[in-house]
Amino acid sequence: MSSISSTANFFDRPEKKLLVPPLNFAMVTSGIYRSGHPLPINFPFLEKLRLKTIIYLGEHDLRKVNVEWAARNGIRIFHFQMENCKLPFVENDPEAIAAALQVVVDSRNFPILMHSNKGKHRVGVLVGAMRKLLQKWSLASVFDEYGQFAAGKEDSDIEFIEIFNAELQYDPRYAPTWLR
Amino acid sequence: MSSISSTANFFDRPEKKLLVPPLNFAMVTSGIYRSGHPLPINFPFLEKLRLKTIIYLGEHDLRKVNVEWAARNGIRIFHFQMENCKLPFVENDPEAIAAALQVVVDSRNFPILMHSNKGKHRVGVLVGAMRKLLQKWSLASVFDEYGQFAAGKEDSDIEFIEIFNAELQYDPRYAPTWLR
Repeated sequence: MSSISSTANFFDRPEKKLLVPPLNFAMVTSGIYRSGHPLPINFPFLEKLRLKTIIYLGEHDLRKVNVEWAARNGIRIFHFQMENCKLPFVENDPEAIAAALQVVVDSRNFPILMHSNKGKHRVGVLVGAMRKLLQKWSLASVFDEYGQFAAGKEDSDIEFIEIFNAELQYDPRYAPTWLR
Repeated sequence: MSSISSTANFFDRPEKKLLVPPLNFAMVTSGIYRSGHPLPINFPFLEKLRLKTIIYLGEHDLRKVNVEWAARNGIRIFHFQMENCKLPFVENDPEAIAAALQVVVDSRNFPILMHSNKGKHRVGVLVGAMRKLLQKWSLASVFDEYGQFAAGKEDSDIEFIEIFNAELQYDPRYAPTWLR
């Protein structure tokens, strides 16, 4: 380590404040994060990610404080209407998932935070569709990951992931590295 | 989208084979992945990550097939001896965790896969120590993430994460972006 010109100790960084990630936050793959609905307490954490895009899956409008925070930080919001599918008569919407994936296959939108309310079911379906269709994960691995966040598999969701398919167009010049 | 010179459809990629990530695989942060012990069925998936380093926390030697695969792919292995702490009389080793973190704070080692056998407890302690000490996550968030993989919190592990501390040296020129 003689080539090291300067070293620093972590405890020389008193400016570092405690950071609070949103509920069920995780990194999905290069350029993509997932979580539940961000609250103001999570904003300092999210600002460190230098997000360019938020994909929100939900039936209600985003809260005003979130919209204003995104605008201040130059973050573009894509809101795709999607109802909570825990009720047995509500079905996942393949068009919303396909539209969200269309945003995902363009690395110019990176970094992206994709979130629903709890970061469990709806965003789990989106990540599952992405793992299967774009990243070619085996279904067993996709369902494992879904279940890790959903804490109890929702049958209708994993059935949806299994049968989901979409015709997506992408520009190879801007394809994410993990798609090439 | 008129500026797009060429587009391609995902179904034009017949060469894409099904990929099987290792047990409990996840992306921790830029440049770092976590998982359970890789098996040969996972090698094609891992090769796509273009790993430079493996950090293995375990009491036994890595299997020969893994060592040979790593050598073929130019992957350097750091093996830190660490026993399984599910037994109440086995304690986590702070020196092993500190040594592993010393590898983590140098981005020249990226991308890194950190794994234990199941990718639950030992690697969960390492990720927890990293979240707390390097990334300044709140303890509540650190424990949430630990529990998501461990499926039932192990008290001794989360106590270890809470009290863990280490003097780490890093070269600012090679610090990971998320440390700056």
